[in-house]
Amino acid sequence: MLERLLITGANGALGSLCRARLGHLARVIRVSARGDLGEAGPNEEIIRCDLGDKAAVQALVEGCDGIVHMGGQPVEATWEIVRNANIDGMVNLYEAARKAPTRPRIVFASSNHAIGFHPQTERLDAKSSTRPDGYYGVSKVFGEALARMYFDKFGIETASIRIGSCVPEPVDHRMLSTWLSPDDLISLIERIFAIPVLGCPIIYGASNNDAGWWDNREVAYLGWQPKDNAEAYRAKLDAAQPRPGPEDPRARLQGGLFCADGIHED
Amino acid sequence: MLERLLITGANGALGSLCRARLGHLARVIRVSARGDLGEAGPNEEIIRCDLGDKAAVQALVEGCDGIVHMGGQPVEATWEIVRNANIDGMVNLYEAARKAPTRPRIVFASSNHAIGFHPQTERLDAKSSTRPDGYYGVSKVFGEALARMYFDKFGIETASIRIGSCVPEPVDHRMLSTWLSPDDLISLIERIFAIPVLGCPIIYGASNNDAGWWDNREVAYLGWQPKDNAEAYRAKLDAAQPRPGPEDPRARLQGGLFCADGIHED
Amino acid sequence: MLERLLITGANGALGSLCRARLGHLARVIRVSARGDLGEAGPNEEIIRCDLGDKAAVQALVEGCDGIVHMGGQPVEATWEIVRNANIDGMVNLYEAARKAPTRPRIVFASSNHAIGFHPQTERLDAKSSTRPDGYYGVSKVFGEALARMYFDKFGIETASIRIGSCVPEPVDHRMLSTWLSPDDLISLIERIFAIPVLGCPIIYGASNNDAGWWDNREVAYLGWQPKDNAEAYRAKLDAAQPRPGPEDPRARLQGGLFCADGIHED
Amino acid sequence: MLERLLITGANGALGSLCRARLGHLARVIRVSARGDLGEAGPNEEIIRCDLGDKAAVQALVEGCDGIVHMGGQPVEATWEIVRNANIDGMVNLYEAARKAPTRPRIVFASSNHAIGFHPQTERLDAKSSTRPDGYYGVSKVFGEALARMYFDKFGIETASIRIGSCVPEPVDHRMLSTWLSPDDLISLIERIFAIPVLGCPIIYGASNNDAGWWDNREVAYLGWQPKDNAEAYRAKLDAAQPRPGPEDPRARLQGGLFCADGIHED
Amino acid sequence: MLERLLITGANGALGSLCRARLGHLARVIRVSARGDLGEAGPNEEIIRCDLGDKAAVQALVEGCDGIVHMGGQPVEATWEIVRNANIDGMVNLYEAARKAPTRPRIVFASSNHAIGFHPQTERLDAKSSTRPDGYYGVSKVFGEALARMYFDKFGIETASIRIGSCVPEPVDHRMLSTWLSPDDLISLIERIFAIPVLGCPIIYGASNNDAGWWDNREVAYLGWQPKDNAEAYRAKLDAAQPRPGPEDPRARLQGGLFCADGIHED
Amino acid sequence: MLERLLITGANGALGSLCRARLGHLARVIRVSARGDLGEAGPNEEIIRCDLGDKAAVQALVEGCDGIVHMGGQPVEATWEIVRNANIDGMVNLYEAARKAPTRPRIVFASSNHAIGFHPQTERLDAKSSTRPDGYYGVSKVFGEALARMYFDKFGIETASIRIGSCVPEPVDHRMLSTWLSPDDLISLIERIFAIPVLGCPIIYGASNNDAGWWDNREVAYLGWQPKDNAEAYRAKLDAAQPRPGPEDPRARLQGGLFCADGIHED
Repeated sequence: MLERLLITGANGALGSLCRARLGHLARVIRVSARGDLGEAGPNEEIIRCDLGDKAAVQALVEGCDGIVHMGGQPVEATWEIVRNANIDGMVNLYEAARKAPTRPRIVFASSNHAIGFHPQTERLDAKSSTRPDGYYGVSKVFGEALARMYFDKFGIETASIRIGSCVPEPVDHRMLSTWLSPDDLISLIERIFAIPVLGCPIIYGASNNDAGWWDNREVAYLGWQPKDNAEAYRAKLDAAQPRPGPEDPRARLQGGLFCADGIHED
Repeated sequence: MLERLLITGANGALGSLCRARLGHLARVIRVSARGDLGEAGPNEEIIRCDLGDKAAVQALVEGCDGIVHMGGQPVEATWEIVRNANIDGMVNLYEAARKAPTRPRIVFASSNHAIGFHPQTERLDAKSSTRPDGYYGVSKVFGEALARMYFDKFGIETASIRIGSCVPEPVDHRMLSTWLSPDDLISLIERIFAIPVLGCPIIYGASNNDAGWWDNREVAYLGWQPKDNAEAYRAKLDAAQPRPGPEDPRARLQGGLFCADGIHED
Repeated sequence: MLERLLITGANGALGSLCRARLGHLARVIRVSARGDLGEAGPNEEIIRCDLGDKAAVQALVEGCDGIVHMGGQPVEATWEIVRNANIDGMVNLYEAARKAPTRPRIVFASSNHAIGFHPQTERLDAKSSTRPDGYYGVSKVFGEALARMYFDKFGIETASIRIGSCVPEPVDHRMLSTWLSPDDLISLIERIFAIPVLGCPIIYGASNNDAGWWDNREVAYLGWQPKDNAEAYRAKLDAAQPRPGPEDPRARLQGGLFCADGIHED
Repeated sequence: MLERLLITGANGALGSLCRARLGHLARVIRVSARGDLGEAGPNEEIIRCDLGDKAAVQALVEGCDGIVHMGGQPVEATWEIVRNANIDGMVNLYEAARKAPTRPRIVFASSNHAIGFHPQTERLDAKSSTRPDGYYGVSKVFGEALARMYFDKFGIETASIRIGSCVPEPVDHRMLSTWLSPDDLISLIERIFAIPVLGCPIIYGASNNDAGWWDNREVAYLGWQPKDNAEAYRAKLDAAQPRPGPEDPRARLQGGLFCADGIHED
Repeated sequence: MLERLLITGANGALGSLCRARLGHLARVIRVSARGDLGEAGPNEEIIRCDLGDKAAVQALVEGCDGIVHMGGQPVEATWEIVRNANIDGMVNLYEAARKAPTRPRIVFASSNHAIGFHPQTERLDAKSSTRPDGYYGVSKVFGEALARMYFDKFGIETASIRIGSCVPEPVDHRMLSTWLSPDDLISLIERIFAIPVLGCPIIYGASNNDAGWWDNREVAYLGWQPKDNAEAYRAKLDAAQPRPGPEDPRARLQGGLFCADGIHED
Repeated sequence: MLERLLITGANGALGSLCRARLGHLARVIRVSARGDLGEAGPNEEIIRCDLGDKAAVQALVEGCDGIVHMGGQPVEATWEIVRNANIDGMVNLYEAARKAPTRPRIVFASSNHAIGFHPQTERLDAKSSTRPDGYYGVSKVFGEALARMYFDKFGIETASIRIGSCVPEPVDHRMLSTWLSPDDLISLIERIFAIPVLGCPIIYGASNNDAGWWDNREVAYLGWQPKDNAEAYRAKLDAAQPRPGPEDPRARLQGGLFCADGIHED
């Protein structure tokens, strides 16, 4: 059991989920975000913090031996937004972790958008080349590289999870391949903190979907077995909406609509 | 749902199966063979056609947006028979598909005999080298290459299924590895027509057999999960017949008896 | 069914197990060990034999068409002990097998200690490089190489099983990855003798553990499906003992404590 | 030294080259083509033969222990032309070789157009997937598969050479990568007939070009070292003609203009 | 020949080299840096520009159809320095390139420090995982990912050169493996602008060193053949300085001293 | 420069060569063998020693910081001979090295017979599976495994050289592929002792032969470039002797005649 687990971005979708369901992992859960986080729960402590503020981040990380880093910009945005949240924020977090005598182990919420330009007909594993689909995706490649550097140089362990689509249930056909059920995300994080030696793995965050694209064999040592399967929702999806056509990026590329130009409109 | 699905070879074993069970895939099912096809069912239209007749094949394909190509010579035969049915017939079919404004998607009944000379102790995937075991097997390598050329050059999508042994149940020990249950073939074809972007995959057509030789990981994106397992028939087979001896091609080579000389007797 | 199956080391842990549960594989079971083997069972014959005695081993193997070779030194020991039991003993056994007109098929109890220095965060298959963790592990690499030579040169078939931890249930956290249930070992040996052509495979002897390190895809042709899963014991282990720390060889290296120096103390 | 070497297509560009320069390989050189072959040289015998004529081909091959098969349709053409020359002609040749007690070793003039749809930025070796660029390319895939089948089933050895551009010197920029100098082709064929065991290799027929795309490491056992390098002609080419633009198939795809539609114009 | 080639960082070591020797590649050479650039040469135009100034960079790139991007922070530094020069600077450059109707092709000066934590006993190619050795190295991984995204999404072609040690001659033992002679760098850039289709390759920038670590086979299509070999300097180096000891990062890790902590001293 | 280099087997063919040509590697050369070694040269010391004598070997190794281990049984022999010389002798040598405070680096004369059963048409590298061709070959697999264990467990560095045929010039056709010129062996050993960090590589000991089978790319970091090429002797060999026929093991298998049964004659 951890002494103190920090959850960043704890008011976001995934951060809230982690806050709600990971309380058993540590004696104290420190939840953090820029915005409001409500009341502290029984074993919680709340610290408001902007990840772009280096000194504040250092204070935030102090005393923690585990970090679930869900903070940052979660979708494509202008470069300035992505840079501040996902580039500078990551550096601040890892510098703080390096200085902390508690040597925190880190879960980094990377993203499938680090490999979004691979076609959906291709199977990937952790050794596949990165093909980010926008600033957001590039920032995740950056984050994984930063984590690896802090592992090789300073021994900080990180699990980079390339999260697919973590929502209560699949809401479009692409999610038949990318869905990560909340239960499976939680069980994955539990496994990451339970294993004595983690290393610095890249893990595809997807449930046991019949139509999955990603191969996690290399991280079988974690003992994580996702239990859910998006296939259970296929009929419902087929009934509710048309399948995307063959030219639609949602049907062609793993990153889906992120591969279409969104930000660079001028 | 397709507008019009053509099933060739519809009076053969697999063609009949498809005719009986794929009616829900299209508004109209066009069934075709050289021989008699009986009465047309509710949403069927029947066209007798020799695949060697170029003009007839062009008419046959017209109006179809899906083709399940089960026609052709299904086992080893003299070169002339194989050539006419599986070489010329394929060219006629693909030329017709190329000209059809409906851009039909094609399921091509390829065969394990395209790789029959690999030993049974070897695991194969779609990138394994072809090692055909006779004229029939060579004609299937030809068919897969032709399909790939029409995909690269003209955008025609094909799923080449290297069918193992599609029979109601395994009837010899080799089929403990090669069996493809009729249910699993049908569910595979359903998946092939359901996915928005197919590409031009090579798929091993085998059920979820404990003793299987073939690895379909690369086509997991189809979301096909075969449900049957030949292992359920092992005890029955063991009771009914002796296992082949170690020198028997049925125990040594993936293509089984096709690897023994059959046609070139002179 | 075999005519006569020899089980060596039949008074050891695994040899006893095989003796107790493989009686159905042959008309006669010949059990052997250096020490006492008790009373002969119904279809048993007992031969006491030191594997270091070349002539005795030749007599022992005579008339056998199957061998389950569980004999030898089962853990790290001084070089002399390992050499006599696992080096000379193997050579005697294979020379005897080569001379036997019955051409026995052999199950060789190799060990995960042939690859013990790989980190636990790495996934291995039969093509991974060997990294033995002591004299014992080196003797197993020797045994696999000897078996391969007798296969290539004389046609003797061997299945080398790199046994993980074959005990009734996992007794430490490392076994969550390495456990081989007795049932799964037995079913594996049954499959090895049932298949018409075995070849000379290297098989990882582990159950279907969620947290497994080893990939047996290449030997799927055997049709072996381990049924047990060490994960069922995780909660019990967690309750009973602390997890090893990150510097502990039991948490870092696949060979566990064998990777720590034990024998070379001077 | 061979007893009798058959050169088919001996009045074509490559056949003539072989006729002119391979006379030392055999006691008798049998030259063949459909058309006129002029006067027989000192150790030559001339046999006019249409490869589509099965009986004539059998007579042609009789008594030969080596074949350099340069006959057939050498560029894209209508299906009927390609089929007759490259499909039926191959089958006739291999059937004749199978029946010949002399067990001829065969050099098969395959082509880079068997893999023409790979982009020029990709490196290929013999295990790369085939991606033919037209009927001609598909016929070469067929030929390689047929050769492999006759090797696996009947022990006929073939070297399939995927010839790049065998001309006196490069005449366009693509040939900086594909050029095979006549000297290098000749030295390759010499090596193929000199080695005691050939197997059934696929060899890329290209000189030692700085800008080459193809990796022949797997056939280094032949001991063939091409000596020429198209790079020597780059300045001359640059001076004489513009480089193709980035959309030109000659700059994008390994098969060059063959990847553009040529035959299927309707 | 290019219309206008931009050289950034033109007052740095490599930028000056490019300025001095690439004048023949374009009608106009636009040289740029933050600092002084002296007098404009015959076909030169000089533009002082801070890469952190988005608008200025856009003006800088305008009208250019080629860019040699040598600008930025060239060694490890504080995060702020690296970020401004190598992260923000890259984004500004690529945004400007995307908007330029001239569609410039880009040479990006990446670095071996993107893979610096690989041991020197390991051979790498373009598919090897990145293992950056500091902020500088992480910024190069970022740059390569950004370039790839602009290629996949907007068609901008980049050659990322992982430059080893580009100096007049090797000055320490590690450079026996990493040396890139100035001549070889220049010939590489010439090839990059000469090829009609570049794609988005990762190229190891090292001469033809006997003791090299990096495999460029995948980019042989460029036709680049480095001519120099650091081995010629071995005797001189051995005479002038001791070899580093086995614990020295300069002898253990590809990134050499960059792998030792330099910046994170607190 | 080494302090004291031990050369074992110094009266054998390769040991004599090393004695004659490696004198410059160390201040003192300690030469050893069971038999007579003549007079000590200027910087030599002579120690007669049976490698089977554990205590004697420990004394032999004492004070050495480099070992060229050419001692042992150099060709196939009875098991007892091979075991004593190559199994027990290796263990004695490595135990002595482990105990020596000088931490000697070791060159181990392994052999191509560790992989002799691979066909000559196959290309191998250090990751290829071992396929020994007799007791001698198995003893070399043992030696490589032992060396690896002492590296992983105790940090002893070894270069295992799978020596091809180290003779003054090739004397049969197989040596066109396997020849290692004496000069190239010497330059390889020089490189092994010059590099600061060696690791524990497996190196194929063959010259730069046109017809080579073995790929040393993975050990390019050594900076070894063999200069000789057996091809220079082909014409001489062809003139002097017939090529082996296709059934001859010398033409089929990499281990040549070692793959034929020699020792196991009963």
